[in-house]
Amino acid sequence: MTTVRRLGPSSQNTRSAVLDLVRSSGTVSRIELAEMSGLTPTSITRIVKSLIEDRLVVETGYGDATGGKRRSLLELNPDARYAVGVSLDDARLTYVVADLGGRVIGHHVSTGIGQTAPSAVVARIADELEALLAELAIPTADVVGVGVAGAGLDLGAGAERMSLTTDDWDSFAVQEALGSRMGLPVVRDNDAACAALGQFWAGRMSAGDDFATLYMSNGFGLGLVTGGAVARGASSNVGEIGHMVVEFEGRQCWCGSRGCLEMVAGPRAMVAEAMADPALRLELELSGDDGHLRHDFDAIARAAARGDERCAAVVTRSARYVAAAMLSVVNLLDLGRVYLAGPGFADAGDIYVREIEEQSSRLARTRSLHEVEVTLVDPGLDAAAVGAASLALQHVLTPHARAGRAEAVLPA
Amino acid sequence: MTTVRRLGPSSQNTRSAVLDLVRSSGTVSRIELAEMSGLTPTSITRIVKSLIEDRLVVETGYGDATGGKRRSLLELNPDARYAVGVSLDDARLTYVVADLGGRVIGHHVSTGIGQTAPSAVVARIADELEALLAELAIPTADVVGVGVAGAGLDLGAGAERMSLTTDDWDSFAVQEALGSRMGLPVVRDNDAACAALGQFWAGRMSAGDDFATLYMSNGFGLGLVTGGAVARGASSNVGEIGHMVVEFEGRQCWCGSRGCLEMVAGPRAMVAEAMADPALRLELELSGDDGHLRHDFDAIARAAARGDERCAAVVTRSARYVAAAMLSVVNLLDLGRVYLAGPGFADAGDIYVREIEEQSSRLARTRSLHEVEVTLVDPGLDAAAVGAASLALQHVLTPHARAGRAEAVLPA
Repeated sequence: MTTVRRLGPSSQNTRSAVLDLVRSSGTVSRIELAEMSGLTPTSITRIVKSLIEDRLVVETGYGDATGGKRRSLLELNPDARYAVGVSLDDARLTYVVADLGGRVIGHHVSTGIGQTAPSAVVARIADELEALLAELAIPTADVVGVGVAGAGLDLGAGAERMSLTTDDWDSFAVQEALGSRMGLPVVRDNDAACAALGQFWAGRMSAGDDFATLYMSNGFGLGLVTGGAVARGASSNVGEIGHMVVEFEGRQCWCGSRGCLEMVAGPRAMVAEAMADPALRLELELSGDDGHLRHDFDAIARAAARGDERCAAVVTRSARYVAAAMLSVVNLLDLGRVYLAGPGFADAGDIYVREIEEQSSRLARTRSLHEVEVTLVDPGLDAAAVGAASLALQHVLTPHARAGRAEAVLPA
Repeated sequence: MTTVRRLGPSSQNTRSAVLDLVRSSGTVSRIELAEMSGLTPTSITRIVKSLIEDRLVVETGYGDATGGKRRSLLELNPDARYAVGVSLDDARLTYVVADLGGRVIGHHVSTGIGQTAPSAVVARIADELEALLAELAIPTADVVGVGVAGAGLDLGAGAERMSLTTDDWDSFAVQEALGSRMGLPVVRDNDAACAALGQFWAGRMSAGDDFATLYMSNGFGLGLVTGGAVARGASSNVGEIGHMVVEFEGRQCWCGSRGCLEMVAGPRAMVAEAMADPALRLELELSGDDGHLRHDFDAIARAAARGDERCAAVVTRSARYVAAAMLSVVNLLDLGRVYLAGPGFADAGDIYVREIEEQSSRLARTRSLHEVEVTLVDPGLDAAAVGAASLALQHVLTPHARAGRAEAVLPA
């Protein structure tokens, strides 16, 4: 258990760590950087010089005089580089372009993956990305990388199980395909982890606060930030809350287990429940076909948001299961903050917030010590894409903080 | 998100950090300590001098010559100081004395808390501890502190909810009472967190491995190590797995929720199930009285271990619920290692191991990527006490790594 993080005096990691100290400090002097990093003033001077030469850092004036000499202050140059985030979703693709400071400066939404073959989707992503960058007048050379957020597990090198509507994605290496097409490093992670990272990176919470981001698309995922970093686990597959057993010996799940959250409370279960009401089925034009899952689910969520009592009952039932699962997570991890993000919460997210708040304020084991704050992330549809851009930025700014799956694949 | 840990040049924390670097390195030179810590060689020389003067570190010979000069090597002096760990349990108190290296050199078991008033228990603990130290010929001045492991939540300053058989412990400040009686710093944490810390400290896993320790006494607790540290959460109450909802809208739990793991699979539920069989009730002399919970539970567990089919069925039913909860935790946190510890697993722990292994090998979402190793910690009854001693040691060696509840209360 080594307790002091060692920084080699001249590595790329050290440079990135110093750049990240500048970013997180706002404005900072060289002396302060030396104190914070444990590096010698000579090393700091050399590293800062190279960061200024690369336009990543700028001098921004002078701080208070201490001992006769005024300290020149440094700041991140947010416009020096950009990162792109793409969220792959069944119903829509969302693109964001962020500057080095994490601010979103460009945004585009297009048709989802649907039944299209992965290679065709990748070709379209590359075209749409190039068009977005051209529109923003950003040369590709100024883009540090592309982050991709998608559903599902990472079941080994290159093979991505995206849990989308087609099985083609199971064995498709989206990183390699997009990386070689774009000529840029591509990193990927699941949408829940991306959404959590995005909130952490954007500084929406104080450092040290643990929190969870529940992401709902066709299923559920949980992004966890503990101890100031996105939790990764043994194989970078943290967050499979969709297969939390909430009903022991309950309905058989496709995963082999029984009574999983996804099986009793996910979009498929909700559509099946609504389909059982012939009038509702007709009214909302539900197909019950897996290829139209998102269409069916959206129709139910929108009707619930409009106040249709039958649909509100379907959503509320799902939300009560989700709230029980989140109560378990809150109790297990002693969380004080929970975020909801993703297309599943776009229309009827308020119902989920209400049920999670109700159960956690009444039943959380630590309710006498602290609140559990439940927040619907706005805009929920962008959260994963913004987080994916953060993922690409993190590769430039803090490669030493990376772990697990989030490894860049450099283009061939 | 500051990424480099700052060490002030002369604080107590720095001294402890250097001491911990010596401990974790085995043998190490001053130059290596400077490189690892980022401190100047001058600072290291000064700190090492004070550690040698206090007998905490010894010089142990010379390493290879580099550039003409041979480096003298440093090592922890394990016999310089000792720490005590006490596990408070309904059925027995367990004491261990550990040296600075974490090795257990003394051990004592006595009667449990039962229905005795907290102040009387604390007086007895002090007497028994003094007797144990006298037997080992360890002067109190060489003891760095006492760690106390108990069940339950920390519901605020001084008030410890121990979840034992009497409510008296709810508002009893065990730390203060024992600290002022012993004249030693006392730290406390829940038994699950202690058991996890003990395994981590003893180096039973490689650094960076996340793992969970499920602790079973009258209820369940989960100690979590993620990212190389015991997870603390918002109020140092991580691990309330006993109130994970495993049966949505199931049996009403005393916590206000329904279908909690403890309610359907804890010792009370198991005793109630066995009591429903009149022959078994008579045979095992079950009382069903809450004051005899541990006696009743132990009788069932021992009979199950002996092969009594009725009792094996009761334990197996509990173990299947526990396995479903652990499967949820494994899926949520992508764990590759799970430990079982505590008196609840002393007699029939094998049945729990078998069910958890069966479910996780068949159903864990990451089963194609890695195993989930399930280990019964031996000796299960000592795990919390050993961990509590580690907690006290950690306060001396790595106060910078402390968090949350584990704060020392110094004697008045």
